[in-house]
Amino acid sequence: MLKPRLFTPGPTDVPPEVLNEMAKPIFHHRTERFREMFGQVNDGLKKLLVTDNDVLTIAGSGTAAMEAAIACACPRNKKVLVANGGKFGERWVKVAKVYGLDVDEVALEWGTALQPETVAQKLATGQYGAVITVHSETSTATACDLEAIGKVVAKTDAILIADCITSAGTLPLKTDAWGVDIVGAGSQKAFMLPPGLGFVAVSDKAWKLIDSITPPGFYLNLQAYRKSVAGNDTPYTPALTLIRGLKVALDMIHEIGIEKVWARTAMLAKATRAAAEAIGLKVFSQQPSDSVTGILYPEGVDDKFRKTLQGKYGCSVAGGQNELKGKAFRVSHMGYIDPLDTIGLIAAVEYALASLGVDVPLGKGVAAATAVLKDWE
Amino acid sequence: MLKPRLFTPGPTDVPPEVLNEMAKPIFHHRTERFREMFGQVNDGLKKLLVTDNDVLTIAGSGTAAMEAAIACACPRNKKVLVANGGKFGERWVKVAKVYGLDVDEVALEWGTALQPETVAQKLATGQYGAVITVHSETSTATACDLEAIGKVVAKTDAILIADCITSAGTLPLKTDAWGVDIVGAGSQKAFMLPPGLGFVAVSDKAWKLIDSITPPGFYLNLQAYRKSVAGNDTPYTPALTLIRGLKVALDMIHEIGIEKVWARTAMLAKATRAAAEAIGLKVFSQQPSDSVTGILYPEGVDDKFRKTLQGKYGCSVAGGQNELKGKAFRVSHMGYIDPLDTIGLIAAVEYALASLGVDVPLGKGVAAATAVLKDWE
Repeated sequence: MLKPRLFTPGPTDVPPEVLNEMAKPIFHHRTERFREMFGQVNDGLKKLLVTDNDVLTIAGSGTAAMEAAIACACPRNKKVLVANGGKFGERWVKVAKVYGLDVDEVALEWGTALQPETVAQKLATGQYGAVITVHSETSTATACDLEAIGKVVAKTDAILIADCITSAGTLPLKTDAWGVDIVGAGSQKAFMLPPGLGFVAVSDKAWKLIDSITPPGFYLNLQAYRKSVAGNDTPYTPALTLIRGLKVALDMIHEIGIEKVWARTAMLAKATRAAAEAIGLKVFSQQPSDSVTGILYPEGVDDKFRKTLQGKYGCSVAGGQNELKGKAFRVSHMGYIDPLDTIGLIAAVEYALASLGVDVPLGKGVAAATAVLKDWE
Repeated sequence: MLKPRLFTPGPTDVPPEVLNEMAKPIFHHRTERFREMFGQVNDGLKKLLVTDNDVLTIAGSGTAAMEAAIACACPRNKKVLVANGGKFGERWVKVAKVYGLDVDEVALEWGTALQPETVAQKLATGQYGAVITVHSETSTATACDLEAIGKVVAKTDAILIADCITSAGTLPLKTDAWGVDIVGAGSQKAFMLPPGLGFVAVSDKAWKLIDSITPPGFYLNLQAYRKSVAGNDTPYTPALTLIRGLKVALDMIHEIGIEKVWARTAMLAKATRAAAEAIGLKVFSQQPSDSVTGILYPEGVDDKFRKTLQGKYGCSVAGGQNELKGKAFRVSHMGYIDPLDTIGLIAAVEYALASLGVDVPLGKGVAAATAVLKDWE
């Protein structure tokens, strides 16, 4: 009777309202009923990403969304700058290379993010057609200053492609105002849905590039999605139940207001960092993301911690990857998680550490988090 | 997107496993499939109530269960002792009077419970046929010593009828060993179900009495349920989905073990009392129940507190009744509530008080509760 609680940075818990919606009988997608719903979903996605452009919905993961962006929009006659500060930056380097792009990989120390100055220097050469960066790098729990990078790229002919998979709906993100030409996102994060949908928002500047490139594939051809979405439709069979759930989830988000959701997420992250400090734990990142917090294990603790946390207290968190493997855990603040959940998780973290023999001042972490979250609304 | 969290002493939250089971298609109840399931449910109920006797399941509320017991089992030629220490004791006095019983009402100060000595003195007169007491009086969050009362009654010809609606599955309760002749219970408390089922366990001693009394009704005639349950069946149409959910809930409870469930509930209550004390609040009861804690509002606070707690933090608790109206709130520890929920609730209580202008030492309550719950398993 252990209550399962997901604090993994994707998948995240899905609200019962959404689960119930998705349990309703299937209806056919080539109908006016579907198109009406899909049109509303498109509006909700635009509002969430703060963009006037249509948002393309792909039946696929966030990786599918990012691959579609990279494959369709990166000019072949220029270099592409790819920031690699973790597992996801690494993945986009691989994808870009699969398509034969001339990749300039900016290898970043884990826990640091691409700096706008680096982008400015590189782009000043005039050799680059696109910049690819991860807004919130899940593997290192680190966020870059996407607004500043966007402003740099906007002054050039290059486009900015941002992996916003764990930032859309969690970190402040103003797609159009910041000059982010392509945003890639996925359903199983702040959208409060199961995995299975990828989202792509494309600027006019990026569409011009896309239209100048021969599409290298079929399913991930953004032009097909653009054509369909204009009629509130999809080019290939849509993941109906997920889109149905998305409608409900978007309604829930917009009932609060996206700016308030951002502020709430930031409070959860701040409280988690304060709790970690209060019990003597260190936050890994030098530029922490507010969607996920990476915390280093204290001396003598390893991934047994996560097993204890899940096995005894029902709370799932993510472990470290690569150089952080067995050395850190990562806690999500995205989606259907509120302050009371977060305070409960911190109690469980204290218990799990204590049960592994760490001398934890029980209650200090929860008290610190409670104090930070006092102005929650 | 406020997460709704029920801390009311019934109804309590229902686990998703149970909700999903109840959402499955209806099947007919006059079938071998139903009888097999109902037999397993009876076994699970017997284990939960620690009795060798069949447990009768009525489609009705806990009040239906208690009325069936009172109407069918109280001898008409003797007095019935009814303890009245709150809203539910008061109700059983009313029910006994409806059936023309010679009621001796023991009026107890709210927050106190029927004492075994009182029962011994009364029963020594030989004038009593039955004793009716509430094990855990929800309205005052007060528990009596049912074991001690059972031992007193067992030495006499009288039977003991206990309202265990908020104690079955939460407080230690050994029906047979304690000599509790009739236990009445209801589904929407520790059984982790929606309202709609009442349970009655009857001893051989009580059956002898019941068989000597002309049944005063039809639907609430325990003999009909006894006859049917022997064939794993019900006399009238059973509440199929609730019984189906009950099977799953009982499996969850027995996977943990009922004694461990009792211990867990006691820890939640202890932590809540410690938290209240840490932030300067007073527990109302002189003999607190571990299934529900009644806490007095501090100076200047009234039932606005509950509105704030629910409206801003999503947590539902019960208010006070009668003399406690507007003066106290009541927090449940029954059923599908774990330590992390309880710690979260205490944070919400701190926030709600602070937002009403009370000078709360933020974090002190949660820290106290966290310390108490450290050995949770």
